[in-house]
Amino acid sequence: MARTKGDHEARRRDVSEAVWQVMATRGFSGLTLRAVADQLRATTGLLTHYFPNKRALVTYALDLLEERTASRPRRPAGEGIEALRAALLDMLPLTEETTSTNRIWVSSWDQALSDPDLTDAYARKYAQSRATLRDRVAAAQELGDLPPGDPEHIAAGVQSFVLGLVVQALFAPSAFTPSRQIELLEEHLAAIAVPRPLEDPH
Amino acid sequence: MARTKGDHEARRRDVSEAVWQVMATRGFSGLTLRAVADQLRATTGLLTHYFPNKRALVTYALDLLEERTASRPRRPAGEGIEALRAALLDMLPLTEETTSTNRIWVSSWDQALSDPDLTDAYARKYAQSRATLRDRVAAAQELGDLPPGDPEHIAAGVQSFVLGLVVQALFAPSAFTPSRQIELLEEHLAAIAVPRPLEDPH
Repeated sequence: MARTKGDHEARRRDVSEAVWQVMATRGFSGLTLRAVADQLRATTGLLTHYFPNKRALVTYALDLLEERTASRPRRPAGEGIEALRAALLDMLPLTEETTSTNRIWVSSWDQALSDPDLTDAYARKYAQSRATLRDRVAAAQELGDLPPGDPEHIAAGVQSFVLGLVVQALFAPSAFTPSRQIELLEEHLAAIAVPRPLEDPH
Repeated sequence: MARTKGDHEARRRDVSEAVWQVMATRGFSGLTLRAVADQLRATTGLLTHYFPNKRALVTYALDLLEERTASRPRRPAGEGIEALRAALLDMLPLTEETTSTNRIWVSSWDQALSDPDLTDAYARKYAQSRATLRDRVAAAQELGDLPPGDPEHIAAGVQSFVLGLVVQALFAPSAFTPSRQIELLEEHLAAIAVPRPLEDPH
């Protein structure tokens, strides 16, 4: 029986899912053709049709991570500080799905830092994310939800806070439950929402 | 000529330095017996005397990271919020040495998240670091440098902020220069130092 386009697509989806599962449980250091083959209950021979080598597998995995992150469901943005809060909540590992995605991102940093092109690509990605946050900070300032101050700076601050919280929650999910993560984020937003007193000249 | 204890110690130091250099430039994903041997201009055969397998090399590397972190020079603590600031500045990649250490820590997260025992060990390590920060937060509250509030919570917040800033600075050192990192940290400390207004009941 001839193989149809549908078969081919279904097989590609299976391969993607297997790559994802391996990354979510073993990280990039555990991402091998053998591990993906085992997850698929297939032979490594079959996989070399998709990935001629380890590098092709890693590139595919990074693209898959990007694609799933871009297409994840997002909270409705709302206005002012609500829109900023929504963007930050979307980044936290509050569900099984977002925990997997974050775990894979963190695990990819080792690879990303050891390859100059990837380091640049990651730096651009984070700069892009910071630009989105900056726009939301500026909109919140317009509405008076946030005090004046360089929105680029404030965005860099909240991005740092959330990234670090992601890392802590991945290592200690019982200490950083979803409700505690949200509480910590709320306190951070409350802190930056308070107008800073004028500098004491002394 | 018989080899002396001094030779042996000197060789151990060379091996440690080679392992460190490989981790700092290639991360844990690039840490192989071959890479360490190349760095040492030695044979992998010689290295198997020190590391019978990859796992032994990784364990050694993690111990070395821990040891170098524990023995790093630290800023004098000072009192109140100064002591908190000093602890946080000690964590940032502000010099070549602390950039390497941080880069190796971040790179080790992939390994650490894929091994449950290591995940627990890392969670304990971060909890320990949080406990130190909590004590400094509490001391700063005693002196009136920080407003009241759960010191454990405030410590978790500053730890998240600094960890995320470390990651950003590693990916984009030109955007997150040492002076910008310090500026962002100062703004964060200023934000948490401001007393929060009473909750609006509405």
